[in-house]
Amino acid sequence: MDTLFYWIDHLGVAVFAISGTLLAFRKNMDGFGVIVLASVTAIGGGTVRDLILDLPVFWAHDPSYLYSILVAAFATIIWLRFREYIHQRLLQSADALGVAFFTLMGANKAMEAGFSPIICVVMGTITACFGGMLRDVLARDIPMVLKSELYATTCIIGASIFVILQPYAPVVAVLAGGFSTLLLRFGAIRWQWSLTVFQPHGDQHR
Amino acid sequence: MDTLFYWIDHLGVAVFAISGTLLAFRKNMDGFGVIVLASVTAIGGGTVRDLILDLPVFWAHDPSYLYSILVAAFATIIWLRFREYIHQRLLQSADALGVAFFTLMGANKAMEAGFSPIICVVMGTITACFGGMLRDVLARDIPMVLKSELYATTCIIGASIFVILQPYAPVVAVLAGGFSTLLLRFGAIRWQWSLTVFQPHGDQHR
Amino acid sequence: MDTLFYWIDHLGVAVFAISGTLLAFRKNMDGFGVIVLASVTAIGGGTVRDLILDLPVFWAHDPSYLYSILVAAFATIIWLRFREYIHQRLLQSADALGVAFFTLMGANKAMEAGFSPIICVVMGTITACFGGMLRDVLARDIPMVLKSELYATTCIIGASIFVILQPYAPVVAVLAGGFSTLLLRFGAIRWQWSLTVFQPHGDQHR
Repeated sequence: MDTLFYWIDHLGVAVFAISGTLLAFRKNMDGFGVIVLASVTAIGGGTVRDLILDLPVFWAHDPSYLYSILVAAFATIIWLRFREYIHQRLLQSADALGVAFFTLMGANKAMEAGFSPIICVVMGTITACFGGMLRDVLARDIPMVLKSELYATTCIIGASIFVILQPYAPVVAVLAGGFSTLLLRFGAIRWQWSLTVFQPHGDQHR
Repeated sequence: MDTLFYWIDHLGVAVFAISGTLLAFRKNMDGFGVIVLASVTAIGGGTVRDLILDLPVFWAHDPSYLYSILVAAFATIIWLRFREYIHQRLLQSADALGVAFFTLMGANKAMEAGFSPIICVVMGTITACFGGMLRDVLARDIPMVLKSELYATTCIIGASIFVILQPYAPVVAVLAGGFSTLLLRFGAIRWQWSLTVFQPHGDQHR
Repeated sequence: MDTLFYWIDHLGVAVFAISGTLLAFRKNMDGFGVIVLASVTAIGGGTVRDLILDLPVFWAHDPSYLYSILVAAFATIIWLRFREYIHQRLLQSADALGVAFFTLMGANKAMEAGFSPIICVVMGTITACFGGMLRDVLARDIPMVLKSELYATTCIIGASIFVILQPYAPVVAVLAGGFSTLLLRFGAIRWQWSLTVFQPHGDQHR
């Protein structure tokens, strides 16, 4: 299962690198801006997770993640020079896949290191959400995760399902956690679910 | 004294979680935005401190801090749904208390780990100020700590007093450091003290 | 050579502290804002490098770096009160020197800890660029490194030259890596080289 997880991890890294490259494109950044945004989105969440859990930062000892980022960013740049457009729906699907992968990977890594269940859920969420948050802060957007439909709530629910089932049936836990994250995310995008806790009060810009 | 420090720490976490929740409210964020801003404000400073000192991150091994954040954020949301308002003066007082607690906790943790006095003062300041700075960056405000009346200077002075007195009289050091931080902070709010080093030069927006 | 590196490191810290102080001046910040921006610029990149490589954070065990920051920031404040102006060309030259120093220092530290060549190049770049990026995020500017002429590309090339030559001829590697970073940086400033990967597409503000 470790090999499977390794490839899922690389796939997640590539998907998020594409998302960072697209934001750099929208903001008219140069080549290095692309690499920074792609890298921060792809490995920022996992880096924060590893630092907090005091584990070796995953990409510092396995540079292959950096190659995945470069390939994904380069392919996206080539695509954009010919098409200047990526279908929004396609991107959201890729992003939802990345979120599902990273939530599982993050929660799993914390479980293997023996942390308590709530910390594992938090780490799944951090792995999936912090990269995008750093990307948005660097590009001076309001972090999507703080505003948009159920982005992180999705991760919390998916990671919780995985963490609860994992001790009993690891494979079921992966499938149940992954698919619930995916379905919730697609549902949230499709029907614009949101978790409103405050009535709109009209002084957003105060 | 360790038990006392533990409860003071939880109180500081709760106070800062309230401050994060209030900013999320002002910015019309959703439920997860509340949790992120509340958490980042409450445990961001201590996390940065522990990472730099290479100590285990305090909440990764004791999830009770996360429960404190959730309870404080939830109570604040309930309050805001009924009142839609929290008295500014009340909030500033709570925040000043949190700052005083965290300054002492941060400096104390660095001292116990055997770091040099100036590093202990810096760590007290980081513990008290970095959480709020991260909160403001995420919410796209200008970090209050960079602009407002003596916010961090207060921590530096309070932490210095604590660090100087601690080897001779621990209890006196806590009281003197804590009260001086509190008094300076209230004085700065009341009379709008500031530490101006540049003449206003009118091209703030250059 | 270690002593030389130590002094080069302090020089780099001082130069970047000046750059942070100047931004705080432009933004009309108070005394603590100056210290935060100066410190974040000067030691932010090296801190991120040490955290990711899981090495002790360099300034936590050697507070003399903090004194260098304070002296540089204070001297800059004094200068600005009398002149209210620093020649832009002088600043850019100082910044280019700092970038060259930090690129070498960061790559060298990763090599000594036995990391793979690509990680060493990345760490040289992070050491030279992340401090300025954090500075700009805190001051709510668009990070210069994401937009400006070959800023980081310069570091990648300089660090690569150093990392390739270092096993064969350490002194040549320092000189070749350092001067190529410097020359590229000056060339980029002088002739406004850039690494455009996207055609300008006119919706920069979308």
